[in-house]
Amino acid sequence: MHTMTALLCQIELEKYIRKMHSIVGNAVTEGRYLVFGIGSSQLLNAAVYALSSENSSTPSNVLASIPFYPMYKAQTMFFNSENFQFEGDTNSWQSNNSTNNMDVVEFVTSPNNPDGELKTPVLGGKTIYDHAYFWPHFTPIPVPSDHDLMIFTLSKLTGHAGTRFGWAVIKDKDVYQKVLNYISVADLGISKDTQLRVLKLLKKAVEGDGKPIFEFAYNKMRDRWERLSSVFSKSTRFSIQQRHPLHCNFFNETRLPSPAYAWVKCEREEESDCGAVLEAGNIKGRAGSKFSAKDRYVRLSLIKSQDDFEMLLQKLTELVSLENSGVETM
Amino acid sequence: MHTMTALLCQIELEKYIRKMHSIVGNAVTEGRYLVFGIGSSQLLNAAVYALSSENSSTPSNVLASIPFYPMYKAQTMFFNSENFQFEGDTNSWQSNNSTNNMDVVEFVTSPNNPDGELKTPVLGGKTIYDHAYFWPHFTPIPVPSDHDLMIFTLSKLTGHAGTRFGWAVIKDKDVYQKVLNYISVADLGISKDTQLRVLKLLKKAVEGDGKPIFEFAYNKMRDRWERLSSVFSKSTRFSIQQRHPLHCNFFNETRLPSPAYAWVKCEREEESDCGAVLEAGNIKGRAGSKFSAKDRYVRLSLIKSQDDFEMLLQKLTELVSLENSGVETM
Repeated sequence: MHTMTALLCQIELEKYIRKMHSIVGNAVTEGRYLVFGIGSSQLLNAAVYALSSENSSTPSNVLASIPFYPMYKAQTMFFNSENFQFEGDTNSWQSNNSTNNMDVVEFVTSPNNPDGELKTPVLGGKTIYDHAYFWPHFTPIPVPSDHDLMIFTLSKLTGHAGTRFGWAVIKDKDVYQKVLNYISVADLGISKDTQLRVLKLLKKAVEGDGKPIFEFAYNKMRDRWERLSSVFSKSTRFSIQQRHPLHCNFFNETRLPSPAYAWVKCEREEESDCGAVLEAGNIKGRAGSKFSAKDRYVRLSLIKSQDDFEMLLQKLTELVSLENSGVETM
Repeated sequence: MHTMTALLCQIELEKYIRKMHSIVGNAVTEGRYLVFGIGSSQLLNAAVYALSSENSSTPSNVLASIPFYPMYKAQTMFFNSENFQFEGDTNSWQSNNSTNNMDVVEFVTSPNNPDGELKTPVLGGKTIYDHAYFWPHFTPIPVPSDHDLMIFTLSKLTGHAGTRFGWAVIKDKDVYQKVLNYISVADLGISKDTQLRVLKLLKKAVEGDGKPIFEFAYNKMRDRWERLSSVFSKSTRFSIQQRHPLHCNFFNETRLPSPAYAWVKCEREEESDCGAVLEAGNIKGRAGSKFSAKDRYVRLSLIKSQDDFEMLLQKLTELVSLENSGVETM
C-alpha cells in the first residue's frame, strides 16, 4: 500500500471511529486524540507507560479494584519496568495510604470484567478507563464517557477479536504522544491491512445509525440473560450478580444490563472452590482467583456460539435440578 | 474466523515459512520452533526478555556492534526493565570485561543494517540473530544459518512492511515458550487476518522454487548498485562500503552483495557532518549517529520506488560532478 493511501485510510478510520462514538453516545471524542493499537491489550500497557513517572526514583503505583481483569497485573508484572509496579487492590491501598494518591495509576473497568459493574475511580490519581464492554448490547449507555484516557476494542464491538484492533481516546497531547511512541517503539506501528479491514467493518456497523447491529446484539444478549436468570432463580446453591436497570441514551429507554459474563457465586459455605463444583457438572468457567477474588466465584462467558451457549444452559439446568432432587454431583 | 480455521491457517503458514527457508537455504528450521510477531520489531524485544535473567539481582547486559540498528537501543531503554540494560557497543565492552560474558545478550545483525556486512558474534554470550536482510536479493547465501534464535521479517522478503509480520526460529523449548508468552502478554497474540494474508503472499512467493521473485528482486538491486557504484567511483569526496563476492547457494554462483542500504562516508577531514553535506545537495539519508557511529557516515536507502531511486541517483550524480568542476555546495 502506498504511503498516501495508508494515510488516507488512517484518517478515514479515525472519522468512522468518531462517528461510531457519536451515534452510540458512549464517549466524547471531539478535540481528543486517537491512537490505534493491537487490540486493547497493547494499549493497556502503553497507557501504563505513558502515565508512569519516567525520571522518578520511585516507581508509579498501578492498581485496580477486585475483581479485576487479570491482564492488568500480568502485563505490569511481566514488563518489570523501573517506571511502575503493580500494587494490587485499590481498597487495601486506600486504607494504608490515606494521603499519597499522587503517583497512582488506576484501572477503571466500566463495565467491569468479570461482573459487568459500571465502575468509578476509588483513588484520586490518574485513571485508565477500560471501556471494552461499554457498548449498548452489554450495558445501558447512561451518558457519554468524558475521561482523560479511554480504551476501546473492536473485539467486543463487532466480535472480531482475532483482528487485534483497539483504540485509545486521549485528552492530553503529551500523554497522546507517549502512547503513540510506545506503539512505535514496540511494533513500528499498526498493520495497514488491519486498518483497511476495520474501516470496512465500521462502515457496515454504522449503517442505519448502528440500530441494526446493536439491536441484533442486544436481543441476543437479553435472550441469553433471561434464560440464564430463569435457571439461577431456581437455585439457592448458586447465585449470579444483581443487575440494575438504567436509562440507555442509545435505545432511549430504561433497560437491564446484559453483561458479557455471568459472575457466579457458590452460596454454600463448604463449597469454597466453585470452579470444582461447576466442573463436576461439566461446566467450564474461570476461577475467581484469576480475577484476584475468591474461588467461591467463577466467571462464565456468555459471548460464545449459540451451540455452545445452549450446551452451557443445558448443563446449568441439570446442575440446578440435581440440587432440588437431592442428588448432587459433589 | 472459527478457532479451527485459525489454527489450520497457522499450521499452514508455518509450513510455508519452513518451505521458503528450505528453498532459499538461508536457515535451518527442522526441529525448531516458530513464533509469529508484529514485524521483526516486536520479536527483537520479546527475544531480549526471553534471554534475560528473570530472577537475578543484576540485569542482563544487552549489546550490539557499531554501527547498529537504532531499534535495539531504543526498545531496551524504553521498556526500562529490571531484567536487562543496554550496554552499547560490543567492542568497548570487550576491553573492559575480559572474562564476564556470561550474562550477555548480543544482537548479531547479518547482513548488518546499515552497512550490509555479514556479522558474527563478538562476545561469548547469548545471541539474537537479526536476519531481516538475509535473503538472496540482498546478499549471497553462503550457508543456512543454524543459530539458537533467528529473526526474520516479511517486510524485507516481499516488501510488505505495512502488514507488520515477522517470525522467530528458535532451538530451545524454554526460550520458545518465553517468546510466545511475551507475544501473548503484550498483545493477546497475532492477528488472524494478517496470518491469512501472509499465507497468500508466501504461497505466491514460493512458486517456481522462489526463482521468479528472487531473480526479479536481485536484478533490481544489482542494477541499482551498479549505477550507484559507478557514480561513487568518480568521487574522492565520498566513498561507500566495500563489497566482497561470495558463493550464493541459492543462485549457485559467486556474486557481489547488493545491500538494502549504501553506507556513505565523507572523506574530507573538515566534512565531519556528512548528513549536512548531502542535504545541501537535496539528498536525505540517516545520520551515522543514529546507528551509534560517527556523523561522518550517512545511510542511504536503496529500497524505494524506482522514481525515488532515479531522483536519488540524479542528485548524487550532480553532487559528484560539482566536486570535479570545482564548484561545490558547501
